[in-house]
Amino acid sequence: MEQTKKGYCFTAIVGQDDMKTALILNVINPNLGGVLIRGEKGTAKSTAVRALAELLPERTQVADCRFGCAPDDKAHMCGECLEKRANDKTLAQSLAKMKVVDLPVSATEDRVVGTLDMEHAIKTGEKKFETGILAGANRNILYVDEVNLLDDHVVDVLLDSAAMGVNTVEREGVSYTHPARFILVGTMNPEEGDLRPQLIDRFALSVTVIGERDIEKRVMVMENRLKYEDDPAQFFEEFEPMQQALRDRIKTAEGLLGKVTYSSKILEKIAKICITLDVDGHRADIVMLKTAMTLAAYHGRTEVTEADVMEAAKLTLPHRMRRNPFEDAVLDLSQIADI
Amino acid sequence: MEQTKKGYCFTAIVGQDDMKTALILNVINPNLGGVLIRGEKGTAKSTAVRALAELLPERTQVADCRFGCAPDDKAHMCGECLEKRANDKTLAQSLAKMKVVDLPVSATEDRVVGTLDMEHAIKTGEKKFETGILAGANRNILYVDEVNLLDDHVVDVLLDSAAMGVNTVEREGVSYTHPARFILVGTMNPEEGDLRPQLIDRFALSVTVIGERDIEKRVMVMENRLKYEDDPAQFFEEFEPMQQALRDRIKTAEGLLGKVTYSSKILEKIAKICITLDVDGHRADIVMLKTAMTLAAYHGRTEVTEADVMEAAKLTLPHRMRRNPFEDAVLDLSQIADI
Amino acid sequence: MEQTKKGYCFTAIVGQDDMKTALILNVINPNLGGVLIRGEKGTAKSTAVRALAELLPERTQVADCRFGCAPDDKAHMCGECLEKRANDKTLAQSLAKMKVVDLPVSATEDRVVGTLDMEHAIKTGEKKFETGILAGANRNILYVDEVNLLDDHVVDVLLDSAAMGVNTVEREGVSYTHPARFILVGTMNPEEGDLRPQLIDRFALSVTVIGERDIEKRVMVMENRLKYEDDPAQFFEEFEPMQQALRDRIKTAEGLLGKVTYSSKILEKIAKICITLDVDGHRADIVMLKTAMTLAAYHGRTEVTEADVMEAAKLTLPHRMRRNPFEDAVLDLSQIADI
Amino acid sequence: MEQTKKGYCFTAIVGQDDMKTALILNVINPNLGGVLIRGEKGTAKSTAVRALAELLPERTQVADCRFGCAPDDKAHMCGECLEKRANDKTLAQSLAKMKVVDLPVSATEDRVVGTLDMEHAIKTGEKKFETGILAGANRNILYVDEVNLLDDHVVDVLLDSAAMGVNTVEREGVSYTHPARFILVGTMNPEEGDLRPQLIDRFALSVTVIGERDIEKRVMVMENRLKYEDDPAQFFEEFEPMQQALRDRIKTAEGLLGKVTYSSKILEKIAKICITLDVDGHRADIVMLKTAMTLAAYHGRTEVTEADVMEAAKLTLPHRMRRNPFEDAVLDLSQIADI
Amino acid sequence: MEQTKKGYCFTAIVGQDDMKTALILNVINPNLGGVLIRGEKGTAKSTAVRALAELLPERTQVADCRFGCAPDDKAHMCGECLEKRANDKTLAQSLAKMKVVDLPVSATEDRVVGTLDMEHAIKTGEKKFETGILAGANRNILYVDEVNLLDDHVVDVLLDSAAMGVNTVEREGVSYTHPARFILVGTMNPEEGDLRPQLIDRFALSVTVIGERDIEKRVMVMENRLKYEDDPAQFFEEFEPMQQALRDRIKTAEGLLGKVTYSSKILEKIAKICITLDVDGHRADIVMLKTAMTLAAYHGRTEVTEADVMEAAKLTLPHRMRRNPFEDAVLDLSQIADI
Amino acid sequence: MEQTKKGYCFTAIVGQDDMKTALILNVINPNLGGVLIRGEKGTAKSTAVRALAELLPERTQVADCRFGCAPDDKAHMCGECLEKRANDKTLAQSLAKMKVVDLPVSATEDRVVGTLDMEHAIKTGEKKFETGILAGANRNILYVDEVNLLDDHVVDVLLDSAAMGVNTVEREGVSYTHPARFILVGTMNPEEGDLRPQLIDRFALSVTVIGERDIEKRVMVMENRLKYEDDPAQFFEEFEPMQQALRDRIKTAEGLLGKVTYSSKILEKIAKICITLDVDGHRADIVMLKTAMTLAAYHGRTEVTEADVMEAAKLTLPHRMRRNPFEDAVLDLSQIADI
Repeated sequence: MEQTKKGYCFTAIVGQDDMKTALILNVINPNLGGVLIRGEKGTAKSTAVRALAELLPERTQVADCRFGCAPDDKAHMCGECLEKRANDKTLAQSLAKMKVVDLPVSATEDRVVGTLDMEHAIKTGEKKFETGILAGANRNILYVDEVNLLDDHVVDVLLDSAAMGVNTVEREGVSYTHPARFILVGTMNPEEGDLRPQLIDRFALSVTVIGERDIEKRVMVMENRLKYEDDPAQFFEEFEPMQQALRDRIKTAEGLLGKVTYSSKILEKIAKICITLDVDGHRADIVMLKTAMTLAAYHGRTEVTEADVMEAAKLTLPHRMRRNPFEDAVLDLSQIADI
Repeated sequence: MEQTKKGYCFTAIVGQDDMKTALILNVINPNLGGVLIRGEKGTAKSTAVRALAELLPERTQVADCRFGCAPDDKAHMCGECLEKRANDKTLAQSLAKMKVVDLPVSATEDRVVGTLDMEHAIKTGEKKFETGILAGANRNILYVDEVNLLDDHVVDVLLDSAAMGVNTVEREGVSYTHPARFILVGTMNPEEGDLRPQLIDRFALSVTVIGERDIEKRVMVMENRLKYEDDPAQFFEEFEPMQQALRDRIKTAEGLLGKVTYSSKILEKIAKICITLDVDGHRADIVMLKTAMTLAAYHGRTEVTEADVMEAAKLTLPHRMRRNPFEDAVLDLSQIADI
Repeated sequence: MEQTKKGYCFTAIVGQDDMKTALILNVINPNLGGVLIRGEKGTAKSTAVRALAELLPERTQVADCRFGCAPDDKAHMCGECLEKRANDKTLAQSLAKMKVVDLPVSATEDRVVGTLDMEHAIKTGEKKFETGILAGANRNILYVDEVNLLDDHVVDVLLDSAAMGVNTVEREGVSYTHPARFILVGTMNPEEGDLRPQLIDRFALSVTVIGERDIEKRVMVMENRLKYEDDPAQFFEEFEPMQQALRDRIKTAEGLLGKVTYSSKILEKIAKICITLDVDGHRADIVMLKTAMTLAAYHGRTEVTEADVMEAAKLTLPHRMRRNPFEDAVLDLSQIADI
Repeated sequence: MEQTKKGYCFTAIVGQDDMKTALILNVINPNLGGVLIRGEKGTAKSTAVRALAELLPERTQVADCRFGCAPDDKAHMCGECLEKRANDKTLAQSLAKMKVVDLPVSATEDRVVGTLDMEHAIKTGEKKFETGILAGANRNILYVDEVNLLDDHVVDVLLDSAAMGVNTVEREGVSYTHPARFILVGTMNPEEGDLRPQLIDRFALSVTVIGERDIEKRVMVMENRLKYEDDPAQFFEEFEPMQQALRDRIKTAEGLLGKVTYSSKILEKIAKICITLDVDGHRADIVMLKTAMTLAAYHGRTEVTEADVMEAAKLTLPHRMRRNPFEDAVLDLSQIADI
Repeated sequence: MEQTKKGYCFTAIVGQDDMKTALILNVINPNLGGVLIRGEKGTAKSTAVRALAELLPERTQVADCRFGCAPDDKAHMCGECLEKRANDKTLAQSLAKMKVVDLPVSATEDRVVGTLDMEHAIKTGEKKFETGILAGANRNILYVDEVNLLDDHVVDVLLDSAAMGVNTVEREGVSYTHPARFILVGTMNPEEGDLRPQLIDRFALSVTVIGERDIEKRVMVMENRLKYEDDPAQFFEEFEPMQQALRDRIKTAEGLLGKVTYSSKILEKIAKICITLDVDGHRADIVMLKTAMTLAAYHGRTEVTEADVMEAAKLTLPHRMRRNPFEDAVLDLSQIADI
Repeated sequence: MEQTKKGYCFTAIVGQDDMKTALILNVINPNLGGVLIRGEKGTAKSTAVRALAELLPERTQVADCRFGCAPDDKAHMCGECLEKRANDKTLAQSLAKMKVVDLPVSATEDRVVGTLDMEHAIKTGEKKFETGILAGANRNILYVDEVNLLDDHVVDVLLDSAAMGVNTVEREGVSYTHPARFILVGTMNPEEGDLRPQLIDRFALSVTVIGERDIEKRVMVMENRLKYEDDPAQFFEEFEPMQQALRDRIKTAEGLLGKVTYSSKILEKIAKICITLDVDGHRADIVMLKTAMTLAAYHGRTEVTEADVMEAAKLTLPHRMRRNPFEDAVLDLSQIADI
């Protein structure tokens, strides 16, 4: 059947600024470490993620590579590409958009990491790997709806791959490794149970989304939606200038990111915030720093400011606060401001 | 064996107007998003759905297509039809009624979405898909009795397909996609446990049915039923004029639907209702608007009125109200009227 | 081994009149919809059912038909019989008694509805159905001891088949349908957990049996039993006149059933009873009417009387009363009499 | 390895008279319906059962019959024996003792009733039954230690076979029936959970055993045991006269059983006892009568006395009394005496 | 790899006299019935058992027999040995130490009792048994660490084999029996849940071990351990005289055991103790008597004394006391002394 | 793909001295018995372990040996190496770093200990072992993240192998043994449930890690991390002198370890500490002594001092204190100091 157009128009999404920023930061800096979106139902979480992928321009990749390796990034290339490269030096290239790869809540570990191709094994007597969802996720967005309902083992595997940037499968004495660098986006409805603290800590950023409470904005949501359903082509045309502006801004930020610097004051501030708020471990500090750096780039600067740190704190700390049982952790920004 | 006649006569169903309206609206506008029927046992839920399918005239479809593709709707055509079309331009056509496809409560995910045909794989070494229940549901009604007893994963899969209009299966590295645009009708007895809020929100409409409390109507129910069991042919003949009138009204409404318009006042009213009633997210607004538009068409108008919004609110909000534990959500229509 | 004689003598059963009447009514009118027998252990439930089948005269059926199709009932004939009939017009006939088919509490869905014959499939590559318990139940009594302990899915399947009169199996893309018109008799001990209301409502009749509390009757129970165990042949001979009388009465009633009529007063009375007693839905009304009609025939009349309605209420309402938790529903017949 | 001698000397068992009587009655009258032995650990339950089998003389059976059919009991003969008999009229005979067949608590339904021989099916393409534990139990004692820990389905199957005297297996469309007339002996420790009332009712007799509280008897238990372990042959020799006396008494009783009669007074007494004690259903009456008759024979009489009824009540009623939760049913014999 | 030396030096174990005595008694009298060691972690339970096996001299066994049959013990010989013996009268012999066979807590029933060799069956079409852990345990020590965590069915099987001295496996109609006479040693930490009373009663002896609270002894434990780890050969040499002395004492006791006698006073005392302490059943009496007899032999006597009974009571009663819930059974030896 | 560099720089880890010491002690003395790291998330537990392996120099091993046997350690050599050695006396050698072998929380027993290679068995009819994770762990670090979430059976197997230094697999009558001497490092977050006391006791050392609360140190953590991510090569160069110093210190300690002595005073002190603190069993004493000896070597001494004992107590006792429910065990060092 004809490919259904799934994406909406990212800049047409009304409100939800935290979520949109968190997603954009991960695109600018794919090493940031993903985002966990918490919120009530019907708040365009999935729509935003798909729309962002839609917005981004096509990238070059090695033609026919299962992992969509970047032709010029030898450090994260798969074995097959490296071999081809070693043989004839040039790799055929193709263009492709960033994809949103869905990880269904019912996915088994085998389906996620890949497994042995039993059919091939039985027929030929050779062990061959059948790649899983993580293979397709390389250089793309891995989207996990209701991540809190996922099997714990699968979440472990997922976060390990996300942290290492590679996926290693071992089955019956054979081992296979391929690059698995992806932007992890998880969503969850806190009413349906939480993630273990160990796991939640490994999402770099988190945002909470709620429905708009402003009539005008709400009408705009409806108007946009109906307009889009009526005539998607026309709708996209209308928003194209804003889409292009965002595309440009992201590209600029990607260029600046490597040049961003920070003073030791900034580091002390971050440390002070984490100690004051009694955040577990050291991951928060580093993620906050990286987020502040990416924010600086997104704002067109090459120097991290205190405002960047404040904004980064808002995105990186809420899910890392210690909680009393029966009590939701609340991040008191005034506490930070006082610091 | 001789095919048993399952359908009853839709217009002979006594009372239950909300349920009947909700079903008709979904037929007029198959993109509306299904209906959840909540209610006590023995209230003709299943009978009404089958009777509605029985009522509708035959439609054209591509002859021998497993998905019953519409010959003139290239946008939602399956791969095989598209291929045939590309080759010889004309597709053989046949006539068929809308079917009610049952999804048994014990259905597994494989049975619903389809799976690899292992027999074929073992014999020929080729992977081939065996389509599931969703294939047969395309352009038909998918009926899920006691949807609250269904396995959560299956409900997820179901609602995803309903939302996308396509069903995509991936098994052992092979992927298959086919159109799956169906009217989803679920029933449940609230005494036997509820659906997760995430899932309930994705049914566009909901109605609650209870037995008639009026003696005359109740006698009519018995009389109709006995008459029907006695001589179905005669019974259908008696109701044929009413059946034809409804058929015509639905056809007219289908024609009007594309022309229905609404003022910005209407949009503001909808937003105000949702904010006042503290409904989660934005899905309610959009569904309410679409329902009001379909109601306008059903009432023979091309302009949405406030009355349409009121009627739409009654069908779209009850299952979206926040609930306190141990308390059933009740939609207070006077609250809406006050707005 | 020599076939063990399982049946007892129906008319030798002491007391338990409600149960006996309910079973006989279902034999007279096989479309009535089954009976649920609730009661303490050791009250001859199973014995009564088997004895009734024993009592009935042999019927004609198509020779060698797996479903025991009636040779003159084209409407409920299986595919094979229809095909034979189409080819040579006459179907070889044989005589057989009504059987009591047991559905063991541990039966799986596959065992009940049938499944693919995997052996045949593996050997020949063709898919063939292996019929299940429902195939053998066609035109017979399906007896489910301790129906409340049955797996819920199996109860669903059972009641669906009972309602439709056909059993449809779908496995791996192949579908098979055969007639499955049976008298469903379930037993349960309420102390061991109840059926879901949705399911209990679908048994047309229900009766409660308790042990006799009268010494004379109790002695008679023992005497009959010992006499039977001592010399079954002699025992049957003794009761033969009573057995024949009942056989004749049933036959007469079968003949009258099609001619039974009722006044609109009767319908109103039924509706009033259901509303007054706050019975869920409309199934009760229709079942009560049909039961009253069958009772009229059983009593040798062709007009339903108020007494028939009263008697029918006693058999059809007790399991349909709303219950408070921790409280058993009790049908207060004086309430009905007042109406 | 050399066959280990399992049996102890039945008449050397100290005390436990109820248990010993109940076992003997079942041997005299194999249709009685089994016995449930309830009691604390270490009370020689298993020893008594095995010792009783050891005591009984060898019986004739058809040589090489898997079910050990009695050569002169055509009514309970297996299919193979009947066929042989039909062909050449005489069946080769052999001698064998009654066996105690153990049903392990972990036995599956397949293991108990038998199943298809998959190996044979795969190799030859023919379906053949592999008999289960019930096959070996025919005409023997089936011993179920800790019957309350058995899977409920298995208990059902067991009691059904016990009641019918046949075991019928149906697997994949093939059905097989063989005689399964056995004396069912179950043991349980009430501290480890009870049987469902439905099941407990189907054991004809029940006895409760406790350890001796008398020093002299306790010493005798030890002395006997040590003597036995020291030199089993000598031990058996010592008790042989008592063993032979019991053998003779059982044989005499078997001869008398068919001639035992009872007055209608006796029946009324039994009915009165059951009504007074509010026993569920009618099974108790019949079992009490049969037990009283067997007791009469065991006592060398052909007329049931009131004392027989009293003794029978003690063995048949305790497990059939209604129980309040948290309260053990106690049979108050004085209540009976008053009657 | 080179065989690691597992055993420690039995006589070098500091303290823990009850445990050591209980183990030795079981070696002297292998029919005693095993020992259950209860106690806190790190108390050398496993070390003691292995060290005892290490201490004992080699025994003769039939060369190549899977069960290590004793060449002169025809009564407990396996089928293969009996067959060889029947053919050529002499069996080749070899020497071997008693082994400690571990039964892992995760062992399945199949692994314990043995099962059919499916591979062999598939290849050759013949059913052959693959022996399990019990085969290797014959004439050895079967050690079950954390026996309370073992699957209940496996414990049943184990205790049955221990009681009978044979292991009988039945699978798919084939049955296999081999000798399985072993000393059962179980350990458990009472903090991690208890055994069912039925099971605990079947361990003949039980001891409770706790860590030493005396500094000197504790230092000795360390010194011995370090010395051993430093130079095992030297360590063993140092303790060899004590080891040899114990070896001799055990050998002497084995010789005396058959000659041990007891007065009827002793029996009465034992019975009185059991009645006074309200011990369930009669197993305790017999085990206490046997233990006292073995103790007499261990103390070099052939007459059981009251002191032997006291010592035996200490080893056989603690785990057989009735317990109130939430209360640990405590054996009050002064109670016994009073008797 | 190009091998990703996983290790960080051990000496660049800020703070966490207990953890670092515990790891180093295990490297100096691989027989010590592993370490359990308890602590909050994000505290560089995994990083430290990997960095330590990175730091250590390469060692010689037998070329192509699956277990990486040391060429000169005949006592712990695998069967294959022993065989080669027996044949030609010299074993080809290669150099390799100590590895960190991960044991995933989802690992099954088969995956850990190895299992039969079914494919090989089916194809060739021969049983062959497929080694598991323990094979690769020989002479390396076995790292178990969240060891408290591991299946209990797997923990048992793991600790048994750790204690014995060998892994023995038995499957279907075949047994295979290989050396499995590894440094076991487990981590756990106490908030997510604890290990059973039996298991926790078998980790020799335990340390608790918490995030730094000092701003300066926290800034240093960030600075180091960012520096490392920026340019790993440069980072390693900067720390090389410190790395080399640690390498040398470890080497020196390894040399001294065999010469370390202790006075009897030291032993008494250890015993006194364990008795005073009421530690279960004797394992604590021995582990404390060994740890003190290793500490002496690490501090460049050959005589154990009281300070070594104090330091060893801190590392070996905290997880061995008895705990009240709902109360965390706290080791009060002042208590020890008082001794």
